[in-house]
This record gives sequence, C-alpha cells and structure tokens, in this order.
Amino acid sequence: MLARFNLKTTKKEGFYPIDEAVRGAVAQSQAQNGLAVVFCPHTTAGLTINENADPDVARDLMAGLNRAFPDDPAFAHREGNSQAHLKALALGSSLSLVIENGRLLLGVWQGIFFGEFDGPRNRTFFVKVISG
Amino acid sequence: MLARFNLKTTKKEGFYPIDEAVRGAVAQSQAQNGLAVVFCPHTTAGLTINENADPDVARDLMAGLNRAFPDDPAFAHREGNSQAHLKALALGSSLSLVIENGRLLLGVWQGIFFGEFDGPRNRTFFVKVISG
Amino acid sequence: MLARFNLKTTKKEGFYPIDEAVRGAVAQSQAQNGLAVVFCPHTTAGLTINENADPDVARDLMAGLNRAFPDDPAFAHREGNSQAHLKALALGSSLSLVIENGRLLLGVWQGIFFGEFDGPRNRTFFVKVISG
Repeated sequence: MLARFNLKTTKKEGFYPIDEAVRGAVAQSQAQNGLAVVFCPHTTAGLTINENADPDVARDLMAGLNRAFPDDPAFAHREGNSQAHLKALALGSSLSLVIENGRLLLGVWQGIFFGEFDGPRNRTFFVKVISG
Repeated sequence: MLARFNLKTTKKEGFYPIDEAVRGAVAQSQAQNGLAVVFCPHTTAGLTINENADPDVARDLMAGLNRAFPDDPAFAHREGNSQAHLKALALGSSLSLVIENGRLLLGVWQGIFFGEFDGPRNRTFFVKVISG
Repeated sequence: MLARFNLKTTKKEGFYPIDEAVRGAVAQSQAQNGLAVVFCPHTTAGLTINENADPDVARDLMAGLNRAFPDDPAFAHREGNSQAHLKALALGSSLSLVIENGRLLLGVWQGIFFGEFDGPRNRTFFVKVISG
C-alpha cells in the first residue's frame, strides 16, 4: 500500500510532526508486521526522527544545522537555496520504520518530522507499507 | 522476524560495533534473500556503517561530528543534550541492509555501529528481517 | 532481485548520477510495487538523493560538506582519509526508494547520486528490489 499526504509549510524552515499521518497509513494498510518507508520527493526538505516531547529540541536542531551548514555567498546555484539542499542531504529523503503487531515501533521520545528548509511551500510525502 | 537487543553503553559518547548481533538476527530469521532493517528507538543515539578495521576511524568520526555540531550555550532544550540530538540526526535512526544467500551483504571494511551521544545508558536496538 | 553495478570514479571527490542504473534494476526485476534499496559497500563513499537539474547544486553540496567536515591534522587514522569517512557518514550507505506501478517514485527534481569522497577508485553499488 502507498499513501500520499500533503503538507502546507508555513515558514522558511521548521520541523513538522507527521506521526499521525504515518500511523494512519500503517493502520489503513492492515499490515500486522512489516516495514513502513516514508519518502520525501523534494530536494530542499527531508525526513528525520527525533524528540517530540520538548519543542525546544526541534528549534535547537534547526539552529545546529544552520551552524554546521551555513549559507555561503560562494555557492554557485542560482536559486540561492543551496543551504536548504545541504540540510536536506543531512537529513535524508527516506525513513525505514518497523511495524510490529499492527503498530509502528517507535521509542517513547521519538517523533517523525518533515524538515522544511526552503518554505513556505506545498509539500508532499509518501508512506509505503510492505508486509512480512 | 523482529529481534531486540540490549546494549549497555559505558561512556558519554562512542561507537559500538553491533555486526555480530545483526548477523545473528539474520541467521535466526533463516531468510535467504531480503532486507534487514536495524532500528534505533532513541533520540540521542543513532546508527551508522563505517570502517571497523582501524579503531581510530571511529574516534575521528566522533571528533568530526563534535566539530560540525558543537555544543552551544544558546540551545534552549533544558536537558542540555541538544548536541546529542543533533549527532543522532546526522547518523539517522535506521539502516537498510541487504541479505543475499543467507548472509548480510557488507563491504570488506564495513562495520555496523551504534553511536551513543548521551551515555552511559541502557540502550536497545531492533533488527527486522523481510524476505523477498 | 539483487543487481550489482560498477562505477569508476575519476576524481578525488564528486557526485555521480546513478538514476539510470537504479531504474534499470527496477525494470529488470519486473516488480510492479515494492521497495528498491540502493546499498553502497564502501566506507569513504555514500549515497544521497538531491537535485540533478542544475549541476551547481552538487558542487555546492560538496563545498558545504567540506566546510562542515573539514580535514583536521588531529585526525588519528593513518590513512589520512578520515574526512572522507565523515562525509560518507553524513550521506549514509543506503537509500530506500518506492516502486509504484513498475516505476521508481522520485520527485521532479530528484536524482540519485553516488558520492565519492576518496577517489578516484573502482566502486560498486547494489540495488535490491522487494515486491509488495
């Protein structure tokens, strides 16, 4: 089963929790055991799993990414968003998650985030479920 | 098949080889061909594949991560471990590995590592095997 | 199905588009729906998905990675290529892609890249297809 979700991001950059969408796709698939792969089809956005209890964590993650991958006037890409492409690379475009007894296996503090680095935009992500 | 492993980390940070556990899970699954997904349910630890021949590589990796993602007094998260969350993001929470003829497909120099960034702690990781 | 590809890199570092190889493996597998996992068996090279429309993006990505993970005379690894190991860690060794209706699901601007960080070398990568 493949589910597609739309996400309207509202700022230049930020982390958007997508746990509910992913859990919904897993439930809809009726898979008892297997894998759920979340895929981001964009090149200036990415996916990550991190703490969703304290929103300050996501803010610190963005600050840390901006420090590690600062914007640079020497970047050649004309669109001027190479920094966003770099942060997307750091996160990656897909997540592989485990389904056990019909539920997504996540740690207590783990949340699934869509990382926007060049918004606001209308974004999309996919959840593919494989039984087994 | 889903296997769960416990790992007791002994220091603030370090890379722990987990090849043997992953290989054991693959053997136990009796899958001849398929995928093995290793999943880390923590938000201040992650998984990576890198050289396991010279232990200096893992030490240099940690030094390089700490340089790219330094601790920052401006971090807002009260627990004070945002740097560990950032390094976990850089590694990622899951690895997708190939099983071929009953064996894990890894390069000659590749080892699988659990990266601890906020230890010492009692940690867990999972190995999910899908045949196909 | 598991396909193996050879790639001769020609410079110290660079991003090599491998879309065609991955699409070929998917077509050959005749899978209508499922997953394609691309795996890199090296420790100084990695895989990423990013923009392939403007070649300046790949150049900027390499510049940004070199800034985030500079070479360091304090690195202990005798081979002197710890920087390449770090960049491989930042990318990761595998990509999980979705197959839908016999085709690879990729965004309009997305291309699949093999990132070489310690070339030139004779490199290899694998594409594993799972139906479902």
